[in-house]
Amino acid sequence: MSAPIDFYFDFSSPYGYLAAHKIEALAARHGRAVKWRPMLLGVAFKATGSGPLPSIPLKGDYAKRDFLRSARFHGVPFRLPEPFPVSTVAACRAFYSLKDEQEQVKLAKALLRAYFVDNVNIGEAGNVLKVAASVNCRPDIESQAVKDRTRAEVDAAIAKGVFGSPYIIIDGEPFWGVDRFDQIERWLKAPF
Amino acid sequence: MSAPIDFYFDFSSPYGYLAAHKIEALAARHGRAVKWRPMLLGVAFKATGSGPLPSIPLKGDYAKRDFLRSARFHGVPFRLPEPFPVSTVAACRAFYSLKDEQEQVKLAKALLRAYFVDNVNIGEAGNVLKVAASVNCRPDIESQAVKDRTRAEVDAAIAKGVFGSPYIIIDGEPFWGVDRFDQIERWLKAPF
Repeated sequence: MSAPIDFYFDFSSPYGYLAAHKIEALAARHGRAVKWRPMLLGVAFKATGSGPLPSIPLKGDYAKRDFLRSARFHGVPFRLPEPFPVSTVAACRAFYSLKDEQEQVKLAKALLRAYFVDNVNIGEAGNVLKVAASVNCRPDIESQAVKDRTRAEVDAAIAKGVFGSPYIIIDGEPFWGVDRFDQIERWLKAPF
Repeated sequence: MSAPIDFYFDFSSPYGYLAAHKIEALAARHGRAVKWRPMLLGVAFKATGSGPLPSIPLKGDYAKRDFLRSARFHGVPFRLPEPFPVSTVAACRAFYSLKDEQEQVKLAKALLRAYFVDNVNIGEAGNVLKVAASVNCRPDIESQAVKDRTRAEVDAAIAKGVFGSPYIIIDGEPFWGVDRFDQIERWLKAPF
């Protein structure tokens, strides 16, 4: 089996959420596993001098429309949460505090669903813990070790050039956006 | 026949160039004509606070790789021109100085090809005129009337929310990016 696909995303990113719905089937079609790697878009924005889409003139209005249309296009249940976006530090820490990879993925899916379907504000640490409890996860979001681990993971992502969400790396080749899944599909057949 | 598709692009935009290769066939499959509307990304960037992709940390390196890979993916001849990007004011004025729409499109295609295939610096007015002459166009890029017309077209684009290239508007619905052509294809069958 080839190396896993690295799947970087921010828990507050609608396009990351859409990608999360599709990445496993895509990878499985080509005999690949997926390594989920939540990161913090806010840290990436400091590197690129960018900011959250809704705050950008013209682009912000377009983005809200495109989130909804893209979700319909991909057949994924979605509502634009309120507030949006939110800090995803607590969500990230909860994820990285879990040792078991299947547990991590289960929690990630639950958090994304809570935010983008059930309108739960996962920017609040208390809500992160509630969502985790609902899927029988007991993450730690307070210990210094977990804070350090999370920071190291996010820094490592930036060092690999990750500046957006979703951001997929396959055998060193980077793809930004759920709208690159058509290129990823072809790449996994044969690099072009 | 339904209303034409509005196709906004900047002459210096690789993704706009790729879209220019595909938009007419896409529109024709659905009984639509295409209205070509060059604009100036530099003016849009003032509105959004953005800048040319190559100048953005992390994103710039990714973009160069993605330009080349996307061209291969779409089967379009492409090289990254040097210099890149360039001012496209002269190209825009040349386009809007022509009265005949078919002449405009012929010139647009020649300019895009000159820049992205033949590495001609279309940021220089003299080169714009040479490319135009090569396809038997005689644009005017100096008169105040043409300058005013160009400014009015670019301002009208921004007023319609155009902030990127390519940007396609179909019956009021906006689509940003050649990577929205899959959504456009479905939308033209039936809005979703």
